[in-house]
Amino acid sequence: MNQLTSSASRVAATGEGIGLDELLLAGRNHAMPLEALRYDVTPAGLHYLLTHYDIPFVDEATFRLHVEGRRSFDLDMDDVRSRPRVSRPVTFECAGNGRARFQPRPVSQPWLDGAVGTAEWAGTPLAPLLREVGFDESSVDVVFTGCDHGMEYGSEQDYARALPLADALGDDVLLAYEMNGQPLLPQHGAPLRVVVPGWYGMTQVKWLRDIRIVDTTFAGFYNATAYRLKQHVDDVGEPVTRIAPRALMVPPGFPDFMTRTRVVDRGDHVLTGKAWSGWAPVRRVQLSADGGATWWDAELDPPASRWAWQGWRSPWTPESPGTYALCVRADDEAGNQQPTDQSWNRQGLSNTSVQRVEVVVR
Amino acid sequence: MNQLTSSASRVAATGEGIGLDELLLAGRNHAMPLEALRYDVTPAGLHYLLTHYDIPFVDEATFRLHVEGRRSFDLDMDDVRSRPRVSRPVTFECAGNGRARFQPRPVSQPWLDGAVGTAEWAGTPLAPLLREVGFDESSVDVVFTGCDHGMEYGSEQDYARALPLADALGDDVLLAYEMNGQPLLPQHGAPLRVVVPGWYGMTQVKWLRDIRIVDTTFAGFYNATAYRLKQHVDDVGEPVTRIAPRALMVPPGFPDFMTRTRVVDRGDHVLTGKAWSGWAPVRRVQLSADGGATWWDAELDPPASRWAWQGWRSPWTPESPGTYALCVRADDEAGNQQPTDQSWNRQGLSNTSVQRVEVVVR
Repeated sequence: MNQLTSSASRVAATGEGIGLDELLLAGRNHAMPLEALRYDVTPAGLHYLLTHYDIPFVDEATFRLHVEGRRSFDLDMDDVRSRPRVSRPVTFECAGNGRARFQPRPVSQPWLDGAVGTAEWAGTPLAPLLREVGFDESSVDVVFTGCDHGMEYGSEQDYARALPLADALGDDVLLAYEMNGQPLLPQHGAPLRVVVPGWYGMTQVKWLRDIRIVDTTFAGFYNATAYRLKQHVDDVGEPVTRIAPRALMVPPGFPDFMTRTRVVDRGDHVLTGKAWSGWAPVRRVQLSADGGATWWDAELDPPASRWAWQGWRSPWTPESPGTYALCVRADDEAGNQQPTDQSWNRQGLSNTSVQRVEVVVR
Repeated sequence: MNQLTSSASRVAATGEGIGLDELLLAGRNHAMPLEALRYDVTPAGLHYLLTHYDIPFVDEATFRLHVEGRRSFDLDMDDVRSRPRVSRPVTFECAGNGRARFQPRPVSQPWLDGAVGTAEWAGTPLAPLLREVGFDESSVDVVFTGCDHGMEYGSEQDYARALPLADALGDDVLLAYEMNGQPLLPQHGAPLRVVVPGWYGMTQVKWLRDIRIVDTTFAGFYNATAYRLKQHVDDVGEPVTRIAPRALMVPPGFPDFMTRTRVVDRGDHVLTGKAWSGWAPVRRVQLSADGGATWWDAELDPPASRWAWQGWRSPWTPESPGTYALCVRADDEAGNQQPTDQSWNRQGLSNTSVQRVEVVVR
């Protein structure tokens, strides 16, 4: 079964194009087209999407959520919906966003910039449920298991991710059954998923079937092996957790179909976009029109909500024709900022190198 | 402006991986994950999506559709919605579906198999509108122009496609403003698009702003240059029109994350999927478990509608462990069939070579 055992992911050779394995992933998992940064809430189907295995079909009629701590119980969707309901806009981003821009490129889902989106998530707070099943001082992690099933490094598993108990008890953590005022779409985890605001996408377990409070640090694949910042395959590495700050702009002008180069008319423009950080509110967004040599500050829109991206805007008036490299970067109130150089790692995670949009002014 | 002038598309060298230009397209345009073949109507966000330029934002409040023949008038969306309403399920497929499986690979949007989807489209029939603006024996084409704007081979344009008048007058052609019971999503052409059942996706003009009956064959880029079956760049080529027959299966079992190879347990399975043709009803679907050496007939579900794909199913019982290459193919009542060998063309169109799913039976 050699063709199954995708072992530790490969790093592409210099100049090596995207292979069939990466293209198979890229065709399934889709980014948000950057012009959709205009929307405060991303419309259905434009939100980024990453699915490790297949999208499972979960029959709501027979669905039960198992919750286990010192006690345990099962809930059906009527039970879940009868609990207190809250709704909030939350920005999600894949931890691998930017992976395909790393040099050299770690071979996996080849994201460029757009693995992000913001939805209005509605559901019931998690913390009261955890208190109902009970925990004590020896409790460490909460393990969330989905119905999505596949193979990793030769080992068969359902997708499972643990969150430290203290984080799972956060006021803003939800079990969500609605997205943008509609029942969850199949690909976004129907009928029920976790929403942990501020954390990268691997935390937001979809098709959730099991919640378990455990007394030892969870050693499952997606905590112990994947989603860790490593330089070498056998490093233990640090886990990625919260979303590092990033700003993205709506590419101005219009594109050439094949090259995707942007054409912009000389004169007055307003550059716009969004910025976010899972660590602290956005403090500043800066723009450059010369590839990062010089920067100016954009104006921030009033924040709409702690966990949703924040709008920004800035006038830009290119006076002379030619090629410009527009860049944007954000930093947050905790002092985190986007790096000037890539901070390369073996799994291609959290590449928040600044966005660069080449435009031709005519 | 050399970086703009994407001229005639390139053909990749032998073994050349997907480049940044193709990846930029692949990240925006997304295929339907093949497990979604289980749905008769594809849920929002799982339907394939191809956008040549940016997704435009069209303000419905100021939107006007211009319609011109012997007379002309403008309609707002209230006018459009006050006209007779019909609703029907229609399967769409991109003419470039399968392009990245051609050897050598024409460089453009690198579709594998999944550039397909079926939606319930609702709107108003087009033919009465064409009769209201009027035409006569000298009328040839109906030109549909969208609001999506970009550059092709150095020439700036709004996306525009013509349909022969006789086809535009077909009973089943719609101006659609709803998809799956909801207002059109931005990426599917809000507020109004064309739906021409049986034709490839380039015909289904989104963000429709202008309909014009003309007396000469339309010579716009997307009729005269693109979407034509050519062997060499300067061939005139034949236009692609209706959808050639194809069957696809839901890949059985579950995948390895990175290789996407499928794992299947020994024993009884039921293979399922969909088949369709824009030329005539599906006549037969056949399956192979040995890479196409031998074939057996699948059972066809009753057709749901002339223009929507048709379900099929077949038991399959692999007795011994090992690797199997599952294949499926369809033919239609007009005698069209999926080719055994690829029918290569320069733009990578209509590659209906049979789907091949490698599975490891354990």
